[in-house]
Formats: sequence, C-alpha cells, structure tokens
Amino acid sequence: MPKGMKDYYPEEKAVREKMYATFKARAKAYGFQEVEMPVMETVENLTAKSGPDKKEQIFLLEKRSNEQLGLRFDLTIPMTRLFVAKQKELPKPVKWFCVDKNWRYEAPQKGRLREFYQFGVEVFGSESPRVDAEVINLVIDCMQAFGLTEKEVIMKVNSRKLLEGLLASYVSPKQMVDVIRAIDRAAGEDQETLKKELKGIGIENDEVVKLAQIKGSMQEVASQIANCDITEEGKEELEKLKQACALLPKAWVEVDLGLARGLDYYTGIVFEAFDRAGELRALAGGGRYDALTSLLGGEDTPATGFGFGILPFSIYLEEKGLVPKTGFVIEYFVAPVDEAVVPEAFRITEKLRKKFNVEVDLAGRKLSKQFEYAASIGAKKVIVVGSRDLEKGLVTVRDLAKGKEEQVKVEDLG
Amino acid sequence: MPKGMKDYYPEEKAVREKMYATFKARAKAYGFQEVEMPVMETVENLTAKSGPDKKEQIFLLEKRSNEQLGLRFDLTIPMTRLFVAKQKELPKPVKWFCVDKNWRYEAPQKGRLREFYQFGVEVFGSESPRVDAEVINLVIDCMQAFGLTEKEVIMKVNSRKLLEGLLASYVSPKQMVDVIRAIDRAAGEDQETLKKELKGIGIENDEVVKLAQIKGSMQEVASQIANCDITEEGKEELEKLKQACALLPKAWVEVDLGLARGLDYYTGIVFEAFDRAGELRALAGGGRYDALTSLLGGEDTPATGFGFGILPFSIYLEEKGLVPKTGFVIEYFVAPVDEAVVPEAFRITEKLRKKFNVEVDLAGRKLSKQFEYAASIGAKKVIVVGSRDLEKGLVTVRDLAKGKEEQVKVEDLG
Repeated sequence: MPKGMKDYYPEEKAVREKMYATFKARAKAYGFQEVEMPVMETVENLTAKSGPDKKEQIFLLEKRSNEQLGLRFDLTIPMTRLFVAKQKELPKPVKWFCVDKNWRYEAPQKGRLREFYQFGVEVFGSESPRVDAEVINLVIDCMQAFGLTEKEVIMKVNSRKLLEGLLASYVSPKQMVDVIRAIDRAAGEDQETLKKELKGIGIENDEVVKLAQIKGSMQEVASQIANCDITEEGKEELEKLKQACALLPKAWVEVDLGLARGLDYYTGIVFEAFDRAGELRALAGGGRYDALTSLLGGEDTPATGFGFGILPFSIYLEEKGLVPKTGFVIEYFVAPVDEAVVPEAFRITEKLRKKFNVEVDLAGRKLSKQFEYAASIGAKKVIVVGSRDLEKGLVTVRDLAKGKEEQVKVEDLG
Repeated sequence: MPKGMKDYYPEEKAVREKMYATFKARAKAYGFQEVEMPVMETVENLTAKSGPDKKEQIFLLEKRSNEQLGLRFDLTIPMTRLFVAKQKELPKPVKWFCVDKNWRYEAPQKGRLREFYQFGVEVFGSESPRVDAEVINLVIDCMQAFGLTEKEVIMKVNSRKLLEGLLASYVSPKQMVDVIRAIDRAAGEDQETLKKELKGIGIENDEVVKLAQIKGSMQEVASQIANCDITEEGKEELEKLKQACALLPKAWVEVDLGLARGLDYYTGIVFEAFDRAGELRALAGGGRYDALTSLLGGEDTPATGFGFGILPFSIYLEEKGLVPKTGFVIEYFVAPVDEAVVPEAFRITEKLRKKFNVEVDLAGRKLSKQFEYAASIGAKKVIVVGSRDLEKGLVTVRDLAKGKEEQVKVEDLG
C-alpha cells in the first residue's frame, strides 16, 4: 500500500459508513444538499490563493496531452468551481456538502495521513454573519450527534478582517499576509513560538504578540480591545462577529484573536473546533472566503464553509469511547447436506435474500464444518437442506442461540 | 474540470447515492461486507497480469521519493492486495464488496468516462463453481432490484479454460493469450471482425471462428461441442460450468464460447451482462482469477468476482425509465420578520433540526421574499417569527400546500 494511506477492512469500514451517514443526515437537517466532484482538478485551480505550503503538498499527475492535473487537497476549491459553473442559474444561498477524500503529500503522523476524508460544507451567495453562524452551528450539532458536549469540545472563532484591522497600526499592508501566516503557525503554542515566528519574518513587536493572545467570550474580547486602534473595516467586522456570536451557543464558543487559519483564501470570520484537553489538531475548521469565486473565474460571491477532518475526529471518538456501534447480521445460513440438494439450497437462499442477509455454503463442506462456520460468522439460524426432508417439502431450521430446531415447510420460509 | 470526468450536482448525486445504497443492500443480503482501499496502488501491483492495454491507461502520479504510484483502473487488484495482507487470519470464503471510483486514461465516449464508479464484488478462498454461481446470481439480483427482467438483460457465461481446451487443437500454447485477446476484441461484432482480428495475429482458421461463435443454453452448447477435441482440463471445466449453470436462473443465462474478457488475470468461468438490444457495452462482468493472489505476493488462492459499471447502467436505467426516485424534503422554513428576532428564530430552527430538515433565512430578506424562497425550495411549512407574537410565546405556522396558517406555542413546535 502507498505510504501514508489506509485500507478499510469490514469492521472499520462499517464504522466509517455510520459516521458518514451521521454527517450527511445532520447536513440535510440544515437544508444542505450533497454534491460530488472528480478527485483531480487543474493545478491552476488548486493553486489559486491557497498559500505556498499547499503547492508543495499537491499529488501531481504525470502530465499527458496539455492538462496539468493534481489531486485535490481540500473540498472547498472543487465545490467553488462547481458553484462558479452554474452561478447564474442557482437560487441563492446555495448550500452544499460533500463527504469525500483529499490528498496531501506530507509526513504521515498520528491523525494525519496522505489520503484522508473530509466532511465539507459550503454556502455561496450570502454575506450575512447568519451564514457563518449557521455553518458553525452545524459543526457543533455534529459534535453533539456523536455524544460530545461543550465540556469536551471548544469552538474558537475569530475574524481575519478584525485581526488585520487591529494589526494595521503595527504591521504594513505588505507584511500582513506573512504576519497572519506566522500567527497561524504559532496557534496553540506558547508565546515564545509566536515571537520566534514573527522574528523570522522581521517583526519584533510585543503589541502584535499581545493582540494575538487576546481570547475569551465575545463580551470579554470586545472590552479588551475597546481602547485599541482599529481600522473602519475592522470595526465593521467586529459588529459582524458579535452578530454571529449572538446566534451561537455561548458555552461552546471562545473568541480567540490568535486564530488565523492556514489557507490564504479566507477573508472574514474563521473558526476551528478543538478538543478542550488540547491533545489533537483541530477537529474541524473553516471560515469566510469571499474572494475565491472570482479567483476561479466566477463573479464575486460571498461564501463561507468548513472542513471536518474525519481521521482526527475518529481518533478522538475512540479516546472518548464514543465510536458508533455497528452490527452486520446474517439471519440465515443455508446448509446443503450433499451435492444433490445444492440447487434447491440455492433456490431457498435466493428466496430468503429478498428480505434477509443470507449465506449459503459455497465450499462444499461437511455439515458439522458448516455449523462451525455459521457460528463463526454469527448467523442466527441454520437451515439444513437434506434430500429426505425435501421429499416431504421440508427443511430443518436450527436457532443457534436457543439451540432449538424445528421442521418447516419450504414454502413457509421467509 | 479535467477531461472525461464528471461533477455531480445535488439531483444527480441523490440518484447515484440511492443506486449505491441498493447495490450495497443487495450485497449485504448475500453476506458480503464492505471494504475500502486507497485510490492509488504501486504500479508494480497495477500491472500484475492485467494485459498490455491497461498499462497505457493508468493515470500515473509524478514520482516522488521512491514510490511509483498510479490510480487504480479496477477494484479487483486492490481488493486482492487487501486479502493477501490478511490471508492467513481470515476465515474463508472471504466475501467483500466495494462501491468506488476507478480511473482509465482513454478516449471519453457515451457510457465511458476517465473517472468512473464500479460496484466490485470478490470472493476469496473457494474453488467451487457454487461461488461463481453466487456472484452471477448477485448481478442478476441487482438487475431485478432496479426493475429489470430477463426480457431486457442477458447474462453471457463461458469458461476461459473450456475455450482454451477447445482451441488447443488449432492454436499453440504460445499463441493462446493473443487468440483469447482477439476473441475478446471481436466480441459482439460480426464474423468478419473476428476473422480480421485473428488474421492480424497470424491465425487463419475457420474452426477457431466457428468455435467462438457457438452459443445457446448450457445443454445446447454441450451437445454442439460433444464431438470436438478437448483437453482433459477443458473437460473438467465443462463439468464445472454445468454445475454453475444448474444454480443460475435459466431464463437469464446464455453460454457463449466467444466471451473471453479483456483482462489477462482471468483463469476460469467468465461472464458479462448485456442489454438484450445490444446497444450498450457490458453492464457488468467478471470471472474467476485464481492466479492473482500469488502474483500480488500471496499464497495461491481461488478467487472470483465481478465489476458492475455504474455509468453504462445509469444510462440504461434512464433509457428504460427506471432511474430510482429521490426526494429531499424541507419540512420547515423559519422566517424571522426582522433582525431583532433572528436569535430566537435560530433557536427555534436548532430545536426543529433535531427531527426535521429545516432552513432559516440566511440572507436577511423581506418576509415576502422569504415566502418566495421557501416555495422555490419546496418547503412544506413556513414558521413566521415576529416580535409581537413572541411576546405571547407564539409563532405563526403556514402550511404552503393547504394555504392555511395557525398560531402555535413556541414550546409546542417540533
């Protein structure tokens, strides 16, 4: 198997399928509809405003004819391309989701593989902070659907524009992108890390460090920055962040000015969900990216959304003992006594399969071996098909749990 | 979008999801369990015994470090790799399925894309013809699940070893692979095509052409070849084919000695399902490939399975008017009258989303526009949230179909 990838054997696949079904059902409860895109995109689209690290991480296809293609590294860029293609005809807001794979060429480690699933959600066509609240609420709703509460998970929110509006007194417009990236790299680390990151790009300013460390409830943060210099755009954005926070469950949410998000395409409110113990990377994250549609050749359209990382989330659920239960039940195992009755055993099997999960002996084993196998796959009942029974139109049905057996008419089965 | 690939907008995605759910449910009824593999494999594995055409068709990844990887072109090779990795510990027979994407670099045309879905099913660990019958029956069962009958679909079956056993009098062992490939390329075409294909590889023999044209019920074919020269292995294989056919529904099945299957890894019984009108490529196809496990580094293990092409099948269902119905219902649209009541409208929405699919106005539209939008998405009921109502703990619920409205206590909603 390729490095940093993963096979799913039946048990693990069943758990994943149940998780995906939960995500999909929650998205539908919010009125989102499912879409799907090819796994690859043109490199031109993939590298539109995603930051320099991402280019390095793209799995490139060998160039053939004149297409330069790469595997996608998130679902936002392809979903935006999908939107742009039909932007004029679609009634707004467009609310889409997708549960699918992405690829990043980076060092595999705990909670990080080169091939990984994301649950991606995007809304196109509304600049209202209500939409940011809607998608953040959906993340929280998903956490709850898996049994998590505000005791385990924290939702950190911020706004790129608010942060930039506050930094504008200390940082030139030219330095701004680098500073935001430095703050993102230092997120969750101690003060010294941020200082080092900033020094690395030629910024030595304690005010910047102090700003990036402000966090608390919306009210607390607002009062801490009340006397700070702030641009007009920053002030407007503060109001939007307040409006969004008013629509979120307070117990789950913390405003954190040090949250910046790695991708360059974010333009407004950003957010990330973390385990409160702080042991894992972000479980989900997203934000507003109003400029991406035009970068992909569409008309300017406000947009916001998130990506939910299934692998770190699975690991987290496992730690918490909250992995969803799955069960695959084989209701009947049909056991032909000898070769002569196999066609009839197959007919019985086919009939039962209209309603039940049924196995029939495929290996030509002795009856005792067939019973052993039936028990090993957890079959509930074994139907013994023998010639003498069949002459009377009968089979013997044995309930493996109760240890009881009875003769049943073939026509009454099912 | 990359050439020969496809985006799935909500309506089409919903249909596809319903189809996948049907395939999965039918496989489970047969006792198969779901697995999943990475989209890419080592080129070494991908090119193990798959025939020279396939190599050309692999989407190769740009080489990085020392891994040479390519996107899979079918599900059989990766599933076999999965089996080989745990071959010793798994109780046999192992019955797995997978519904997932594959990629082939070839010219896109009707029913053929470069990125395409397959429903793949494999059984490892039994050499009994019962297993071949089991997987063929599953294909037929799936056809029936979508409303198709033996009037529309025909299942052609053959055996590579039987064909080789009959050809042995006219074809040297060295020429055999090329002859099989020529027969495969000419399948479904007229006699002249086969003659031309055979001439192309230096074979001009009417007996070969005649053999490849024998078809009919198992009984008819058996009587037609009764006087032919046949190897011992061919004779044994004829018995196996008879045994398998005895377990299949006669009305669906035709033995066709001209069916050879493109991939070199097949070793025994092979089959393909076609629309009887003959307008489309094979809808599903498969066969026995007992040598593949050892080619992928495992112990020799009998194996059989099939791939079901979702795209040609979708096109066929559309032609027949049998595309499954889907429906996405928005039960409530929550309409705040003004900005002040938005937080309460969100609380009501969150509560209703525990049970229903619910949208809330995200764009700050006027009430009349909200009603228009609610109707356009087919919402069943609109909940109008206004300050005066709220003071009394009430909202107004309007049933859009019946045109009736009533006042409801907020606490009674949901």
